[in-house]
Amino acid sequence: MFLHRQELQFKATPSKPDAVYARRLQEVLGGQYGEITIAMQYGFQAWNAHIPGKYRDLLYGIAAEEFGHVEMLAIMIAQLLEKAPIQQTEDAAKSDPVLGAVIGGMDVQHAIVAGAGARAVDSNGNPWQGSYITASGNLLADFTANANGEMQGRLAAARLYHMTDDKGVRDLLSFLIARDTMHQNQWIAAARELQEEGHELLPVPSNFPQSKENQEVHYQYLNFSDGATAKDGSWASGPTPDGHGEFTYHDGPTTTVPMPPPTMPDSRYYGTDPKPNGAEKILGAVKDAVEKK
Amino acid sequence: MFLHRQELQFKATPSKPDAVYARRLQEVLGGQYGEITIAMQYGFQAWNAHIPGKYRDLLYGIAAEEFGHVEMLAIMIAQLLEKAPIQQTEDAAKSDPVLGAVIGGMDVQHAIVAGAGARAVDSNGNPWQGSYITASGNLLADFTANANGEMQGRLAAARLYHMTDDKGVRDLLSFLIARDTMHQNQWIAAARELQEEGHELLPVPSNFPQSKENQEVHYQYLNFSDGATAKDGSWASGPTPDGHGEFTYHDGPTTTVPMPPPTMPDSRYYGTDPKPNGAEKILGAVKDAVEKK
Amino acid sequence: MFLHRQELQFKATPSKPDAVYARRLQEVLGGQYGEITIAMQYGFQAWNAHIPGKYRDLLYGIAAEEFGHVEMLAIMIAQLLEKAPIQQTEDAAKSDPVLGAVIGGMDVQHAIVAGAGARAVDSNGNPWQGSYITASGNLLADFTANANGEMQGRLAAARLYHMTDDKGVRDLLSFLIARDTMHQNQWIAAARELQEEGHELLPVPSNFPQSKENQEVHYQYLNFSDGATAKDGSWASGPTPDGHGEFTYHDGPTTTVPMPPPTMPDSRYYGTDPKPNGAEKILGAVKDAVEKK
Amino acid sequence: MFLHRQELQFKATPSKPDAVYARRLQEVLGGQYGEITIAMQYGFQAWNAHIPGKYRDLLYGIAAEEFGHVEMLAIMIAQLLEKAPIQQTEDAAKSDPVLGAVIGGMDVQHAIVAGAGARAVDSNGNPWQGSYITASGNLLADFTANANGEMQGRLAAARLYHMTDDKGVRDLLSFLIARDTMHQNQWIAAARELQEEGHELLPVPSNFPQSKENQEVHYQYLNFSDGATAKDGSWASGPTPDGHGEFTYHDGPTTTVPMPPPTMPDSRYYGTDPKPNGAEKILGAVKDAVEKK
Amino acid sequence: MFLHRQELQFKATPSKPDAVYARRLQEVLGGQYGEITIAMQYGFQAWNAHIPGKYRDLLYGIAAEEFGHVEMLAIMIAQLLEKAPIQQTEDAAKSDPVLGAVIGGMDVQHAIVAGAGARAVDSNGNPWQGSYITASGNLLADFTANANGEMQGRLAAARLYHMTDDKGVRDLLSFLIARDTMHQNQWIAAARELQEEGHELLPVPSNFPQSKENQEVHYQYLNFSDGATAKDGSWASGPTPDGHGEFTYHDGPTTTVPMPPPTMPDSRYYGTDPKPNGAEKILGAVKDAVEKK
Amino acid sequence: MFLHRQELQFKATPSKPDAVYARRLQEVLGGQYGEITIAMQYGFQAWNAHIPGKYRDLLYGIAAEEFGHVEMLAIMIAQLLEKAPIQQTEDAAKSDPVLGAVIGGMDVQHAIVAGAGARAVDSNGNPWQGSYITASGNLLADFTANANGEMQGRLAAARLYHMTDDKGVRDLLSFLIARDTMHQNQWIAAARELQEEGHELLPVPSNFPQSKENQEVHYQYLNFSDGATAKDGSWASGPTPDGHGEFTYHDGPTTTVPMPPPTMPDSRYYGTDPKPNGAEKILGAVKDAVEKK
Repeated sequence: MFLHRQELQFKATPSKPDAVYARRLQEVLGGQYGEITIAMQYGFQAWNAHIPGKYRDLLYGIAAEEFGHVEMLAIMIAQLLEKAPIQQTEDAAKSDPVLGAVIGGMDVQHAIVAGAGARAVDSNGNPWQGSYITASGNLLADFTANANGEMQGRLAAARLYHMTDDKGVRDLLSFLIARDTMHQNQWIAAARELQEEGHELLPVPSNFPQSKENQEVHYQYLNFSDGATAKDGSWASGPTPDGHGEFTYHDGPTTTVPMPPPTMPDSRYYGTDPKPNGAEKILGAVKDAVEKK
Repeated sequence: MFLHRQELQFKATPSKPDAVYARRLQEVLGGQYGEITIAMQYGFQAWNAHIPGKYRDLLYGIAAEEFGHVEMLAIMIAQLLEKAPIQQTEDAAKSDPVLGAVIGGMDVQHAIVAGAGARAVDSNGNPWQGSYITASGNLLADFTANANGEMQGRLAAARLYHMTDDKGVRDLLSFLIARDTMHQNQWIAAARELQEEGHELLPVPSNFPQSKENQEVHYQYLNFSDGATAKDGSWASGPTPDGHGEFTYHDGPTTTVPMPPPTMPDSRYYGTDPKPNGAEKILGAVKDAVEKK
Repeated sequence: MFLHRQELQFKATPSKPDAVYARRLQEVLGGQYGEITIAMQYGFQAWNAHIPGKYRDLLYGIAAEEFGHVEMLAIMIAQLLEKAPIQQTEDAAKSDPVLGAVIGGMDVQHAIVAGAGARAVDSNGNPWQGSYITASGNLLADFTANANGEMQGRLAAARLYHMTDDKGVRDLLSFLIARDTMHQNQWIAAARELQEEGHELLPVPSNFPQSKENQEVHYQYLNFSDGATAKDGSWASGPTPDGHGEFTYHDGPTTTVPMPPPTMPDSRYYGTDPKPNGAEKILGAVKDAVEKK
Repeated sequence: MFLHRQELQFKATPSKPDAVYARRLQEVLGGQYGEITIAMQYGFQAWNAHIPGKYRDLLYGIAAEEFGHVEMLAIMIAQLLEKAPIQQTEDAAKSDPVLGAVIGGMDVQHAIVAGAGARAVDSNGNPWQGSYITASGNLLADFTANANGEMQGRLAAARLYHMTDDKGVRDLLSFLIARDTMHQNQWIAAARELQEEGHELLPVPSNFPQSKENQEVHYQYLNFSDGATAKDGSWASGPTPDGHGEFTYHDGPTTTVPMPPPTMPDSRYYGTDPKPNGAEKILGAVKDAVEKK
Repeated sequence: MFLHRQELQFKATPSKPDAVYARRLQEVLGGQYGEITIAMQYGFQAWNAHIPGKYRDLLYGIAAEEFGHVEMLAIMIAQLLEKAPIQQTEDAAKSDPVLGAVIGGMDVQHAIVAGAGARAVDSNGNPWQGSYITASGNLLADFTANANGEMQGRLAAARLYHMTDDKGVRDLLSFLIARDTMHQNQWIAAARELQEEGHELLPVPSNFPQSKENQEVHYQYLNFSDGATAKDGSWASGPTPDGHGEFTYHDGPTTTVPMPPPTMPDSRYYGTDPKPNGAEKILGAVKDAVEKK
Repeated sequence: MFLHRQELQFKATPSKPDAVYARRLQEVLGGQYGEITIAMQYGFQAWNAHIPGKYRDLLYGIAAEEFGHVEMLAIMIAQLLEKAPIQQTEDAAKSDPVLGAVIGGMDVQHAIVAGAGARAVDSNGNPWQGSYITASGNLLADFTANANGEMQGRLAAARLYHMTDDKGVRDLLSFLIARDTMHQNQWIAAARELQEEGHELLPVPSNFPQSKENQEVHYQYLNFSDGATAKDGSWASGPTPDGHGEFTYHDGPTTTVPMPPPTMPDSRYYGTDPKPNGAEKILGAVKDAVEKK
């Protein structure tokens, strides 16, 4: 269960309103890698977890913090919007280039739908969606997803840092970026620990027996493009990171089969008749039937 | 540019039709981590890449293979559907429990929309969407996303392996699982190489100066839940994986500020009036105006 | 901020697994009026609120409970799925009608994507989305939305109650339905209080002056269908609930204007040329130009 | 059935073109609470209705008017766009700040996709979707949804009123706002009448016996936040609006159970192995198998 | 404007309930090419039309009929669902294979959300969306889209015809299929007439001067695959249908340029640093800064 | 399978950066009729095809070219974005109207999410989705869809041509427009050839016997609007394009039935009780039960 406290983890008040920036900040609130994603992802991973103890505790511990980040960003955005202009006409824009910039750059639904409030959307106004999250039940896969989530999140926040010089906003971003640093480190540590303790190894899922995978091709690099340097990386020769094989390099596929013939479903699916003049014959029969009617 | 050859990389023909399984297989074709996602993700990363040479070559080289996997799965699904029953009534289901199972388990749009053909959707019929992919321009973040993608993909394929005993389907899955093994290894190797060569380090993005992040909290584990064992992991004490700090553990937040007061936007946004009886007064004025009219 | 406790508000454990029912239960977790919607809606209303004090406190107080309901349902679903069958082939279904029913009735992504875990989707597998929520900044409108949300939620839960006879599931539903009863009552009470205190009156928004609306038609019931009894309700005659007018009844529109003529945008938008033979003339010119080339 | 007349209910012609405003107006055409939603919602409620007579007649009567509102807005938008600039380059914007404002503020798909025509999208370009509508078969719930719909709709229109000073547009908005006033009043009257006639009572659905809901908690206000004034409202003490109980106030939950243990699905779902070193053992076996191969 | 009459164009009553079929029928109501799409598409084309007179009249005339088809299908679906079973447990399914088939095959939201009513979704429960429609302002393009819409619609209806043997349902489908026959013919006739009258010619848009398109490649068939027979069609040699050229056939591209070098955006976008050891250098500087702090 | 070559079919390099235009160009990359749609549509049609030989070869041959167009546009967009400004504040916009225009007109996710890279979205930032494509198994329907796709695509490209005067961009558009000319011609030729060879005739699907469609209404034009000129077209009298009938014109419907009565589902769906005072009675019973408790 979750208990709410009417406090924030960090000061989330801008130095001055900025409706254009409010829109941009929606990305780290409701975007693909925004805080709603992160909070929900850790929540679902915890609820679906199969291991009790420290790994599930870790998921719960960070998830709850992230719900608070959702709140901080929503409140920051509401304050950035507090003075959003209401007179948003083309005419207004024409007579005041400053206002024109605001009108062009702001999220119009901030004004029309939310009355100068935050929304559960990204910086282009796409609503957040459940398909952004990953919770597979396999913690090594999911912690890798989490590490990526924190990387993408920190990246977006760092870019946003340079799109404002508002001290209040930068302070909050500086705080969120620091927490992303922490969480990147934590998921990397946790992924490593899962492997050291033998819960899971590479390749994920490690309890699917590799004897069941096609062992001809499982360590072959098949280069389907013509890049001359593709074979120069550590991914093309030498031992594989999972410790089970050696990379080999190949130009193009090492296996190939002819394209299977087209399928021929039941004629009542009314696909195109493969027999030339098939339709003509049907037509004749139909015409006869119609005439007899 | 892409050149097409009317061959497949591997045999993609089922031993017998199975419309129920065809639906399941859509997951690895058009799902969040299906082959369309993987192919498009590597494509966009290559097109957006900032480094010439081996990293971009690697992206192109695998992307093109993955477009071929999309094709193999689509063709496999079309063949699984070739004998999909057309007489799909409740009555039919009632008189034939076998047919009932098929009707319940198949994707009805396979029949109604595609005429026994594959579709660009997942196993629940949700259309594939561009927001599944990640291509940020930061290759360490993106290669981590790719490693996760191959893990989630191999996981789904492994689960699907046990949902059929069709030899043809299992052979194809065995092939695809092997390629996922390979690609997991490759992205892990490539992520490591990026760091070794100094293109990018932890925390991502490494060229955002850590001096600009809030250094009070950047290595603090703040446990917002009450799990007793959350502090037992390598994510709660000891050196951080990025090599720049030491983890410390804290029960709950180390910083806190009061909730900011509510915002007060322009009254023409028509939010609720914070002044009790504000509306009454407005109403009075309106009534007067109306009466005078 | 949110603090998590590893407790549930109520016992959320089924008497026995039921993958078919797990899918159904997703509706009240991730559907249009599921708990994610309710929790997020109250959260965003609080974050966007313009009135301090009891109304915002009410929003925070219920929002946090609802996040706990999200958790209870996710955990219940994971347990219902714990024994989800892995051998989900058409063949298996054929030889075992019981299994056939399960395969047909379950959410296949529960198995393939979440590994027998809960997901942020509805009972048809549509991902939850931010556009389900309402947070306009006008509390009378929003509390009406909330009352509706709790009504729709209680309705779905009541229907689900009859789709199982599992004691554990019914106990949880009985608890959630009771909470919906409470919250329906609360939002109705709060909507009434907002009006009594004069924060907001009907019609919403009350501070938009009615003198600016078209007063010819603002209390006319214009019946655009031919239902003979449409005029028999209290919505067709007598005083209006807002206390500002009298309903009048009319068969069809009381006002009408001719359809405006079609628009004629810049020809470089390449809409159809309204002038017959316009294209021919263009074609002639083009051909000339081509020939001269 | 629907019969179309080439007339509009009200004049829908702007005084002058305004591509920036055309985008804003899309919100009340194709947004969450736009006219498409309202028309479709009333239609589906009528088609799904279980009561003949005046309630269904009311639904049909308003639904058909709303389809006409969809038309009026589409035609207004097309006219606002009639002179949308075609030369929309960054360069053009640079040399003409006025044009810059237009380019920034308009919906680019109005130009590129619709050739200066209206679209079935909201003001951010999100396509309208069927999940915006509510039609549950329970009319008290649905009429509450309708009242909310008309409130949110009037709110958006009132905000839009201040974003233009075009007389033609304001006249149309003034008309639509008046109709929203009427329809708010009608749904509130109809919801009241449903209760007075005993079709439905609070809590919705009233024919679900309250004896089956958890009666310990059905009138308890459980405040999961720490707002000091949450208990001061009429929602925290006194009789409940449904007339069946008394509100009581409680700080936090009155019931609690420990978190259930994690689930343990079939190992072939390949979730993380809860046994430390489980993976190591599997790996050993696999290696043996591989070596023997 | 639209006026509603409480009549249907054709009898829409099933011989008996069939919840499984009700789900299938949703495809032609709320699917990509369902009646909502068709009605809305013709509506938006009319509202965006640039030509007065017969073409716009045609659009209005058919659009209004199609809104009535939406209604017929919704009402048919509600009746098919009237006896949808409420006891939809896995257990029930197990003891009654017939019920199992129903549970597997029906749309669960029909029961849980709509209380045995129709919904604005397709046969997989995906909500209808505005992006299904096409209304470009160019009538030759749009009438081609309409012809396709009627073809896809007739195809789906024909497939559905064989998925039931209910006389009432088949009669309605027989009616709808006949109307699709008519409308296919009408759009083909209208497209032809547009060309004959010179409003629009091939290639669409004909008023974009072909002198501005690349005339080296505008009639070349570039075969990017290795199909041996691709050159045997009338699309590979002989005069082109637009009457302006001659098809020529080529194996693969006739033009080619090297891939451009990667882009190098501002370093504050934090893409991967193309310079090996770039990050190391940044790291050094950061460390210095940190130490000095 | 697909093989990649690090070459482009045509030069895709702008003369200078233009972030505003980059957003617009997304329409023909990731929009409803963008190159992703076109490439995927032809791919799925080929994979689902039922006819071997020249028609399938044609599909493969063009599909592969279109994947290359996806690449060209992505690379063009990345280059247009290369110099996208990072300092995108309202303040910046205010002091520099030029920058204001850019900020308003660009896609903010280009900067925040992709780090100045292309994305799989349309010009409003809506992610590409699988429901844009059509692949029904019926080639005459699908080739009509393809002809429409190429028309809509050429239309969008022609509009975009006038939104820039960048020589590099215009050259690429000129190339793509030329290819659309070719492909329009090809699909029209192929659709004609399908009919000439008797694979498929009008109305599609031609192998559904017309004797099964309602022959009273299959060639009647029923004008549901009041347009005076609707009967003047070749769609209202004379022979039908399919050669099987004669058009007849009718004002309004020629058939009609009364609206069926409302449905009465199981009371446990908790729809509104059609019996007045039904709820009262239930309430009485409930109250009794509660009191006895």
